[in-house]
Amino acid sequence: MRKKIVFLSTLLIAVLISSPYVSAQNQNEPLIIQQQGSFMVGGTVIENPGEFTFSDYRKPDGQKAYVDHAYTFYQIPPDARKLPLVFLHGGGQSGKTWETTPDGREGFQNIFLRRRFGVYIVDQPRRGRAGATSLPHTVEPPFNNIMVFSLFRFGNYPDLFPGVQFPKDSESMNQILRQATPDTGPYDDDVTSEAMAALFNKIGEGILVTHSRGGYPGWHTALKSSNVKAIISFEPGGTQFVYPEGELPEPITSAYGIHRGVGVPLEEFMKFTRIPIIIYYGDFIAEKPTSHIGQDQWRVELQMARMFVDVVNRYGGDAQVVHLPEIGIKGNTHFPMSDLNNVEIADLVSAWLKEKGLD
Amino acid sequence: MRKKIVFLSTLLIAVLISSPYVSAQNQNEPLIIQQQGSFMVGGTVIENPGEFTFSDYRKPDGQKAYVDHAYTFYQIPPDARKLPLVFLHGGGQSGKTWETTPDGREGFQNIFLRRRFGVYIVDQPRRGRAGATSLPHTVEPPFNNIMVFSLFRFGNYPDLFPGVQFPKDSESMNQILRQATPDTGPYDDDVTSEAMAALFNKIGEGILVTHSRGGYPGWHTALKSSNVKAIISFEPGGTQFVYPEGELPEPITSAYGIHRGVGVPLEEFMKFTRIPIIIYYGDFIAEKPTSHIGQDQWRVELQMARMFVDVVNRYGGDAQVVHLPEIGIKGNTHFPMSDLNNVEIADLVSAWLKEKGLD
Repeated sequence: MRKKIVFLSTLLIAVLISSPYVSAQNQNEPLIIQQQGSFMVGGTVIENPGEFTFSDYRKPDGQKAYVDHAYTFYQIPPDARKLPLVFLHGGGQSGKTWETTPDGREGFQNIFLRRRFGVYIVDQPRRGRAGATSLPHTVEPPFNNIMVFSLFRFGNYPDLFPGVQFPKDSESMNQILRQATPDTGPYDDDVTSEAMAALFNKIGEGILVTHSRGGYPGWHTALKSSNVKAIISFEPGGTQFVYPEGELPEPITSAYGIHRGVGVPLEEFMKFTRIPIIIYYGDFIAEKPTSHIGQDQWRVELQMARMFVDVVNRYGGDAQVVHLPEIGIKGNTHFPMSDLNNVEIADLVSAWLKEKGLD
Repeated sequence: MRKKIVFLSTLLIAVLISSPYVSAQNQNEPLIIQQQGSFMVGGTVIENPGEFTFSDYRKPDGQKAYVDHAYTFYQIPPDARKLPLVFLHGGGQSGKTWETTPDGREGFQNIFLRRRFGVYIVDQPRRGRAGATSLPHTVEPPFNNIMVFSLFRFGNYPDLFPGVQFPKDSESMNQILRQATPDTGPYDDDVTSEAMAALFNKIGEGILVTHSRGGYPGWHTALKSSNVKAIISFEPGGTQFVYPEGELPEPITSAYGIHRGVGVPLEEFMKFTRIPIIIYYGDFIAEKPTSHIGQDQWRVELQMARMFVDVVNRYGGDAQVVHLPEIGIKGNTHFPMSDLNNVEIADLVSAWLKEKGLD
């Protein structure tokens, strides 16, 4: 009888330990997904005049085009936390940004699934799997590896910065350069934020996570949908930030370009004061002007972000900029979500979500 | 004591029953994923002459472009079957083809994961998330909804065929039209099959599953990589099939275009005789010439496929065409993998894999 109890207890413990429900944090444990799938959302339908005939079926005459939508792939764990994370990539990127890192480790998609968040990985309109465009556009081969190396703050081409959180092997560089994918139509922040708002209106309340050039349409998404309950933004940029009309900072020139504020009515801007906002920037950002386009661009983006946060807080909001080296986290590039220390970065995010009661 | 045993036994049974390992076939049960991630594979690097300067960083001078690779997202279940399924989409499509169906049911991605296959979902070079191209290309708005309605054999626009396995609601039509995404570079079967062969060389042996225009580069993938251990092809087309040099059929004209054979050396063609091949076509395919471009295109594609299979078998191979209505499965469109009866279609595939010892 005692043997039976011991056997059953041991078996039960073995089953519980081996159960993926128990310890999903470890990369070697299976992921448990209650629901996964994908859909297109938002967009418009445009029509070409004329009459369709089978004999001229390739002509646009009389046919419609379904365009300017976003694509999203979602995964929801069992017993998911209340608010899912909705990930919007940056310029020249797709949802790939949030998947496997260039050196093959888990990205934020898997990391936050393991932490019981639903995750939505978006390709913005006119990008990636959401390529159908309402306006024609010419794609050119991306001769830009040195520009990207600089803008991503990997180093002084071809040398990596000492202590940079990017892997040294050539295959990782190959992977991150290939994960870029072109615009298939003219870049349009309004088209992107419309589709993002349609996504939030469909799925309900959630937390928007943006990166780089995705930061700017991200701010507008929050203005367009009250279902955006918080914004986490990694290195927002692209030379534009939102401010209240009449309170725009003077344009600032960096080695990358001219950085400007874009005005919205104060009533609209006040929406930013009703949700918690956190913005992260990594390392190797210049303190004074330099010709290194990446170090200089992010010098000014960081400055613009701080002014944005100041205005939000002056109107009663809860926004902050975390410049990672200032809290002792060194070596981060423009891609903290896939840098070598991305679990540490995810831990920061988790702690902030907990602090704000968002988990 | 007896109570303790009863309690522990009950708890153990409860844990086992609730364990997702036990019954993953049901759409309401969680999916268990041992590994999931994504990577870029294959492609080339091209370089622009000249010298890079920070002040002209947007110019291609002296910079490299990483291009013409494929993207793949993979999911491997615990205790996976030996050979994974590698899914290559068709013309104007991306990996989305194999994900959620237009009406929100599970696609082949989830269905075959639940059947313990590893699944690799590809975006071919110059498409979707693998958009970086070595040659420039202009993208136009896709004014083609009537053409597509016909080519996909949904019906006589705007009426669905009676009994068609495509849902009647307008949102499903909206979804399938939006899942199209354009070429970002000139269409090139050789570029696609090179990247697909690189994928098979990286992941090892697997089963290639192709759709439509993906069929043709799929045949060439099997010629380029001996890791392709079987081919399952849904409605291969695109007006080209492979035959041995000197044994090409006469070109055939359909309402869609001119369909031709493309010759490869017999020694190469013999590779098709060493792997099992199955080809599926759906319903509403014309038996004699008609002006309906979809019904007429697939009439000739089916004819070309039958000739291909005949040649493969004449040289000792194991290839077959399954015309679904002939085995009593009615109403399928050009997308059997997402039609209303896609589980029945998946069952056919599973039965064939079992028969061939591939599961």
